This record gives sequence, structure tokens and C-alpha cells, in this order.
Amino acid sequence: MRQFLPILDWAPRYSRGAFGNDLLAAVIVTIMLIPQSLAYALLAGLPPEVGLYASIAPLVIYAVFGTSRTLAVGPVAVVSLMTAAAVAPLAAEGSAEYLGAAVALAVLSGLMLAGMGLLRLGFIANFISHPVISGFITASGLLIAAGQMPQLLGLSVRGETLPHLLAALADKLTQANIVAALIGLPVLAFLFWTRSRLKPLLMRLGLGARLAGAMARAAPVVAVAVTTALSWGLALDLPIVGEIPRGLPLPRLPDFDPDLWRQILLPAALISLVGYVETISVAQTLAAKRRQRIDPDQELLALGLSNIGAGVSGGFPVTGGFARSVVNFDAGAETPAAGAFTAIGMAVATLALTPALFFLPKVTLAATIIVAVLSLVDLGALRRTWDYSRGDFAAMLATILVTLLIGVEAGISAGVLLSIGLHLWRSSRPHVAVVGQVPGTEHFRNVQRHEVVTVPDVLSIRIDESLYFPNARFLEDRLLAALAEQPGLRHIVLNCAAVNRIDSSALETLEALNHRLADGGVALHLTEVKGPVMDRLLRSHFLTDLSGRVFLTQYDALMALAPEITRATHDAARGETARPRAAR
Amino acid sequence: MRQFLPILDWAPRYSRGAFGNDLLAAVIVTIMLIPQSLAYALLAGLPPEVGLYASIAPLVIYAVFGTSRTLAVGPVAVVSLMTAAAVAPLAAEGSAEYLGAAVALAVLSGLMLAGMGLLRLGFIANFISHPVISGFITASGLLIAAGQMPQLLGLSVRGETLPHLLAALADKLTQANIVAALIGLPVLAFLFWTRSRLKPLLMRLGLGARLAGAMARAAPVVAVAVTTALSWGLALDLPIVGEIPRGLPLPRLPDFDPDLWRQILLPAALISLVGYVETISVAQTLAAKRRQRIDPDQELLALGLSNIGAGVSGGFPVTGGFARSVVNFDAGAETPAAGAFTAIGMAVATLALTPALFFLPKVTLAATIIVAVLSLVDLGALRRTWDYSRGDFAAMLATILVTLLIGVEAGISAGVLLSIGLHLWRSSRPHVAVVGQVPGTEHFRNVQRHEVVTVPDVLSIRIDESLYFPNARFLEDRLLAALAEQPGLRHIVLNCAAVNRIDSSALETLEALNHRLADGGVALHLTEVKGPVMDRLLRSHFLTDLSGRVFLTQYDALMALAPEITRATHDAARGETARPRAAR
Repeated sequence: MRQFLPILDWAPRYSRGAFGNDLLAAVIVTIMLIPQSLAYALLAGLPPEVGLYASIAPLVIYAVFGTSRTLAVGPVAVVSLMTAAAVAPLAAEGSAEYLGAAVALAVLSGLMLAGMGLLRLGFIANFISHPVISGFITASGLLIAAGQMPQLLGLSVRGETLPHLLAALADKLTQANIVAALIGLPVLAFLFWTRSRLKPLLMRLGLGARLAGAMARAAPVVAVAVTTALSWGLALDLPIVGEIPRGLPLPRLPDFDPDLWRQILLPAALISLVGYVETISVAQTLAAKRRQRIDPDQELLALGLSNIGAGVSGGFPVTGGFARSVVNFDAGAETPAAGAFTAIGMAVATLALTPALFFLPKVTLAATIIVAVLSLVDLGALRRTWDYSRGDFAAMLATILVTLLIGVEAGISAGVLLSIGLHLWRSSRPHVAVVGQVPGTEHFRNVQRHEVVTVPDVLSIRIDESLYFPNARFLEDRLLAALAEQPGLRHIVLNCAAVNRIDSSALETLEALNHRLADGGVALHLTEVKGPVMDRLLRSHFLTDLSGRVFLTQYDALMALAPEITRATHDAARGETARPRAAR
Repeated sequence: MRQFLPILDWAPRYSRGAFGNDLLAAVIVTIMLIPQSLAYALLAGLPPEVGLYASIAPLVIYAVFGTSRTLAVGPVAVVSLMTAAAVAPLAAEGSAEYLGAAVALAVLSGLMLAGMGLLRLGFIANFISHPVISGFITASGLLIAAGQMPQLLGLSVRGETLPHLLAALADKLTQANIVAALIGLPVLAFLFWTRSRLKPLLMRLGLGARLAGAMARAAPVVAVAVTTALSWGLALDLPIVGEIPRGLPLPRLPDFDPDLWRQILLPAALISLVGYVETISVAQTLAAKRRQRIDPDQELLALGLSNIGAGVSGGFPVTGGFARSVVNFDAGAETPAAGAFTAIGMAVATLALTPALFFLPKVTLAATIIVAVLSLVDLGALRRTWDYSRGDFAAMLATILVTLLIGVEAGISAGVLLSIGLHLWRSSRPHVAVVGQVPGTEHFRNVQRHEVVTVPDVLSIRIDESLYFPNARFLEDRLLAALAEQPGLRHIVLNCAAVNRIDSSALETLEALNHRLADGGVALHLTEVKGPVMDRLLRSHFLTDLSGRVFLTQYDALMALAPEITRATHDAARGETARPRAAR
């Protein structure tokens, strides 16, 4: 019971102290969340109130089911972009069908997440590798920023890809609204400035780090208040948010339209995975700081139920956001109750505050989005990944380019397939070294890197990978080539120290290899076989059919097969020990 | 040049002795190949002469480009079944379109194979794991046998799946031809008997093993001759082969029909892969017996060109057959010239022998197919695979069931996807052991399997797998859980002896883990990092940021972190050395 309802863990011991801290954190997060909710709803092509709805029910549900103490769920930029990309081809923006599809997307991705949680399938998210998710978030950030930039000029531009966005911008450039630009560009500059400079400045003025940080985070609210006042007071001619319906949405199950659900199946799956990867990464970062633990499968369930809650209450897909969770954590939230209090705050805002937002310029929301998403763009990661691994770099670059040029769904899919393909390709070509004895020792090292002694009719080979079907034939090709090239060969000794698993394909290959080598007059021996691998081999006929023997160590094998050379090498003067030979 | 034309290797040194041996082998293989070619063409739903055409040009081409000295290419049972499955949905059997599609299939799969050979993509075939190919061949054999059984009753039955075949048989059963059954069932019994009993009998009568084997292999030819004579002499009323056009096909490029080619793209790819896997496995088995070498990428090119040749000369897809290659090898073939001589034999047969085959009963061909394919069915492999690995068993069973119930293309595709999925799933859950020091030694072993000594504030963990994206988060979850569960923990020592690679995802996870553990007051240390892994880590910032240190051995680490306990354990009386504790 407790496993599925983590609230039972903390609620019975809830203290007055925790209540005070949670309440303070909730107030700060609510202030931050109001403009964000509106902005991300507009980014998804939805009416602004949908963002508010998505910030109420999901927070309460997460407080009941989530295992993270400080995660704040709600609309986030990347998932909002993915929602727009999924729904735009299905219905016209502003139509009831568009809203219905976004709501269905939340419910379907919630069902997927909850299902994965119940079936403990969280590992599926691992197949989005870090270079792929990093490339995807960078590209999404660039796409979002490129889509919002025109808003700073009072232009509304839609497009799925960077070329489309740029073309649409070029078409509309002559219609730029100078008033919007006069408000938008200073707001953008102000937000950038507060993001990087305000906190150090306030601290130099004598404020504590925590208060200074909270004040810096409140900058968007100041921008909202000031620009709304200007827009109202001066009756400025620029796009404003306008009428937001007051009142809370009644829970209602979305209509089940099989056709629609089939069309949003893939987007819902991708939104689920991307949202989950972001959530779990934020939750683990924060939990480790306080030595708390999160349960990844329960997080799936909690996030899934939150999304179902979002859909049922008229919202769109939500996930655990990085920025707002950090604010919640820094503001001192102690339990998920902070999230529930934030939900109350958002509900109050929806009921009471919406008339005050009538004159809020859309350009202000665009500026907050641009500042938020540009912090997601990490082009330096390309360089770091290139330095570390060319294959990972290729996966990352492909993800970025496909996302920018073809779209978000194609981008993340291409990245995942390419990184799995590269992984399989690398598995299929393991590192294999011919080894020889280091004089004066019982150790064996790569003949290409060290001055070692080898025995003419014995080939010692070390394979640095588990043996399974992607690489089974590789070993076979390699050893049969050795057989053809070394006419005097009598023994092959396979060092299995780095072999963590041998699957059926590799077992059959080894069996065939054993027979083929025996046909060619060569015995196959194994050394340093790990316990679990040996347990499994004992369940097959391989060891009884093996033409050679199984030795504990490479040295034992060579002592048995070529005792004179091996002993002489072992007894060689210690002074002449192994030196790296012109390593390649 | 020699790399692409292996004929340049052996032709200049071709001797009179080799000529004699090759010629004898070619005569024997030709006799075996005539009924087989006809039978497999009928199995593919094609006119019988197409089988003859597919046994001429491809053999000559393989002799020029192939690296195996003894492989015999031509029509084989499984690929013929796959051809029928690919072409049947596109055109009516017997129509020109049907033949055209089969020819296009040969050309397209030839182009794919040759392209893979030139790009050295042979490793792609590794992704058909052994359990999948074994299950697929077993299921194909069952499907073929089920399709041919009704022929023994003179009934022609077509169906893509086992249920369809059985339903079609049930419908037609009342039309059974008693004459066909009176010929077919004795022929079947005769062929089964010769296959298992004739060779030992002949040897007991004093014949040499090789001659006895060759005579046993000739049994189908005897069946063909006798039943043709009966059918002609008694004017039997049963389905016969009938008119086969005399003369050789003129080479001609098939029409390029983009629509058709798109439809046969997947079948052509699957036929290429299955054909290549069979070819390479036969070629390697035979090459090893004589310490010869084959080049897998050149084999792709040779098989590809052979298939293009098959298509251009009016034939259907070919591959290296197991049975006929063994006959060729046993008959003493020394060079690929034997294949070229076989082609001449088949051409002569096509020109001269076809009138003699007019009265050949189809039931005789059905019986030869049944006997040939039932030797492919290996249900024992299910049991052996179950014993060795449940995951591999699941992939094999799924391949068999999907092939039998849905079809050959679905079967092989499901098997490949499932085995890759299972592989990724296993990679995502590596074996991780908490280790402790074996008293009296510097060795560390799994605490669950041995009586070992651990230090309260140090967690020693060994991970038995490379670290890459499928399992990166697993390690993180595991270590963060340990952090939450052991409040007194100060150090985590990660033993990397079995880590052959760390990719970017795992590197980032380790970096995050390092910071998260440091936030929780725990230092992360590494031991026994392999050279190539260390080279790569040195190209990142990880080692400079690492909160702990990198030690050469686990013992060094523990001596540095908890010297008293570690030294005391090391100096413990040797008599109290490690005993396995109630191993789990």
C-alpha cells in the first residue's frame, strides 16, 4: 500500500515546522508559475487558461503519488513544443478539436506512463541516451526561441521546423508592430540581465543568498506587472492575453475517438519518454542533495496519474520541470504538500486574478519563454561529446539536425534509433587482443602494446566483451583467419576474463569453432572463465566436447601447453621486464 | 584486384589432378541438382525450368567471385518458400507477373547483397541470432512439409501459414488422387529409408564409406527415373511435370518497375539476410575442415552477383545450400571450377534431358522436398536453448510461432526485433555485486556468495558490464539507493575490472553521481580501470572533478580508506580463509 501511496510515508508525521516551510515555498512557486503556465499554453497553441488548469490537479495528484519531496510538476517548454507539433497537423489552432487533441494527448501519455510504471518498464527510458536527449533539448530550445522571437515584434508565426519558421518570419516582417518591439526588447534585456546579474548585485547590497535568489527569480513577475500596467494605462496597441475564463474546470473524461488516439499514439509515447527522462533526472538530482530516495517506477505511475489528471481537468501534458523544482527546493519545501499548496495558489489565481491579466502583453510572455529556453541550449555539449566519443557525437548531431530540419518527433526518433544502431554496431566489433607473457611475471599483455613473449604454436587471445549474437561471428572470423594464416598453430587459448555473458548464439559459435578448429588440428582452450558464465556453460555440452581444456589462468594454460618457454620467460631476469613497445 | 576476384588466386595454379577431382564432383552434384532444381522451382510456385536456369549462371559467377572452394550455390528450400511468400500476394501463380516478380526479387536481393559486400556491412547479418535463424529454419521446414504433404495425394494446396494450409487440405481431401498416393507414399518411404539406412547397409556389404555415401545421395535420382518410367509406361493418371522448354535463357535485364520493387523491398532484404547467413555458415564449416579461409564481405559480393546473374538469366533467388555443398566437398571438389563444371552439366541437362522429364510425377518431387526439409527441422534445439537461456528460448519460440501462424516475413522480423529487444533489456540490467575482502588475502568477492569482511562506512561495488546508455541509470539508481539506505556511508569504491567501455551517457551519469554523492557527503572512488577506458576518461573533466581517487586495485583503495580493518583482514590466519556462505 505504502509503495503505491508515498503520501502515507510523510503525511502522518507532518509537522507545523514543515507546514510553514512548505507554505512559503508554495507562495514563491505560485508567483513564478502563473506567467509560465500562461506562456507555455500559448507556446502549445492553446488558450492561456489551459496552462493554469494544467498547474492545479496534476500538482495535487503528484503530492499523493510522487516519491520526490520537492519535484514541481506542470507545463514545461519542451513538452509544450512537442504538444504543438503533435496536435497542429490534426486540427486548426484555436478550434475545439485542437484543444480536444491536446487533452487526449495528456490522457493517453498519462495512461502510457502509468502502465509502464505498473509493469515496471521504466528501463525503456534508458534507451534515450544522454547525447540524444541533450541534443533534442538543445534543438527544441532553438526551435522555441526561433518561434518566439517574431512575437517580440508583435508577429505570430507558426512552423514545425527552423526553415519554416524563418520563411514565415520573412513573409510577415513588414507587418512588425513597433509598439510590441518597444515593450518586448527591453523586457527581454531586463530578463536576461536579472537572470545573470541581479542575484550577485543584491548580495553585494547585503542581502542573503537565498533572498537574493528568490528576488531574482521573481523578475518575470515584475515584468508582467509593469508591462500589464503600461499596456492598460497607455492603452497600447499590441497583442494582449485578453479574456481568460474565470472559474475552475469541471473534471470530465475526454471523448474517446479511436481515430484520434491512433494518430497521437507515437507523439504520446515520445512525450511520455521525454517527460519521464526530464522528471527523473530532476528528482534524482534534488533527492541526492538531502540523501532522500526516489523510486523510478513509482515516479512513472505518479507522472502518469498527474497527466491523466491534467487531461481530465482540461489541461495539457505536464512533467517535472527543472527550474521550478529548484525554486521549490531552494525556497525550503520539505514535503510534497508544498505542491498541493501551490495548486491551491494556482486555483485562487484562476478564480481571482485572471481579470488583472487581461491587458498582459503577449510579448512579455514571449520574452520569458525565450530567456527560459535559451538556458536549455547547450551547444558546448557538442564539443564535449566530440572530444569523448565520435559515435555519441554523431547521434547527438543527427538528433539536433533532424529536430531542427524535419521536426521534433522525427528528431527524437532518429536519435534513439541511431544510438541503438551504433551501440549494436560497436557491440558487433569487440576489442580483441593477441596477448603474450610479460617476461619475469605470470602476466599476459597485448602484443601490440608491450614487449612480450609468445609461443609459436599457441595463440593466446583475450576478448574484451561479452559474447553474444552481434559479435559471435566476429570471433569466429577472427580465429578461423588465424587458423588459415598460421600453419603451425596447434592451440588457441581464449582468455575470458572480460566476458560477462555468453548467449546461445555465441555458445553455438564456440561449439562450431571448437569442431572446425579440431578439424584443422587445433585445440581450443579457455582461461579465466567467470563463475556465472561457467555455471551456464556447465548446463550445455560445450565443455564435454571441448577439444582443449579450461584453465584457471592464462599462465596455467601456457605452463601446460608450452612449459619450457613459459617457465623460462617467468624466470627471466626481473630487470628485463615489460616495456611498452612503440604503442599503436 | 585479387581481393575482388578470388579466381586469380587459384586459376593460374590449376592442375590436372584438381581438374579430375572437380569434374567427378561436378558430375555427382549435377545428378543431385537436377531433381532439386525442379522441385524448388515448383515449391516457389514457378515453372520447373526456372529452377534449372537458377542452377547455371549463378554457379559460374560464384566460381569467379567466391572465396569458398567448395560451396555450391543454387535454389534452396527455405529461400524458395520465402520467394513464394513474397511473390504470391503480388500476382497470380503461373502468370508472367509472378515470374517477373520472382526474377526482380533475385536481382534486388542480389543488388542488396553486393552493396552490403562493397560497403563491408556483413555484420548486419549478425543481428539474426542463432536461436532466431534456427527457429525460422525449423518453422520453414514444417511449413514446406505441410505444403507438400497434400501433393503426395495428388492435391495442389497453397497457403502462407500452417492454419491456411491445413484448412485448404481439409477442403480438398475428397479429391485425393489414389494413383498419386500409390506412387508418392512408397517413394517417400524409400527416400526416408535410403537417407538413414542405405549408407550403413552398403558399407556392411563391403563398399567404401565415400562410395556408399554417394550412392545413398543418388536415391532421389533413382526415384525420379523409376517413377518417370512407371508414369510413362503405365500411362498413370497423376500430375506430371510436363513440357519443359528446351534451350537456354537469353540474358536480359528485368524491367524496372518502381512500384513492384518497393513492394518486394522488405522480402528481398530478408531473403538476402537469411540466404547470406546460410551461405556463410556452410562456407565456414567446409573451409575450416581444410584450413582454408573465406572472406565474409567478399562472400556477400559473390552471392550478390550470383543472384543478379540468376535474375538476369531468368532464374529466382539462390543461396549456398548445405546438402549440395557437403556432397561437393565429399565428392572431392578442390576448387570453384567444380561449380562451373556443374553449371555446364545443368546446361546440358536443360538442352538435352528435359524431354525425358515430361512424365516425371510431381509427387516424386514433393517426396524429395519433404525428406530434404524434414532434416532441417530441429525441435530438439528448443529444449537445448531452454536449458541454456530462457531469453534465447523466448526469441526462438516466438520466431517459430509467428512464422507458422502469420508468415515467414513476419516470423523472421519478429525474431530479430525480439532478440535485439531482449539483448538491450539484458544490457540494461547488468550484474552488480557488493564485494568484501576475503580474510587472509588481497582478494574481494561477492558478499552474497562468500564469507568476506566489509567496512561499515565504505561500500565496495563491482559492476560486471560495460557502462553505456541502456544501463547508465541503473547504476545511478543502485548507488543512490545505497546512499539513502546506509546513513553512515562515507565512501563508494567502484570496481571497474569488467567495464570494457564507458560511453557519453554513462560518463555524464558518473559525473552527476559524483556530484550527487558529494552533496550527500560520500566520496566516489574507482579501482581497476582498464587502459583504454582510462585513456578516454582522461579526455573528459570527470577525473579532475572526482570527489574520491582512482586506485590500481580494490585492496589499495581499502588500505587507503580503512587501513586498520583491511590490514587486519589481510593478516588474518590463513586457516580461516573464505568459505562460500549459504550461496543464493
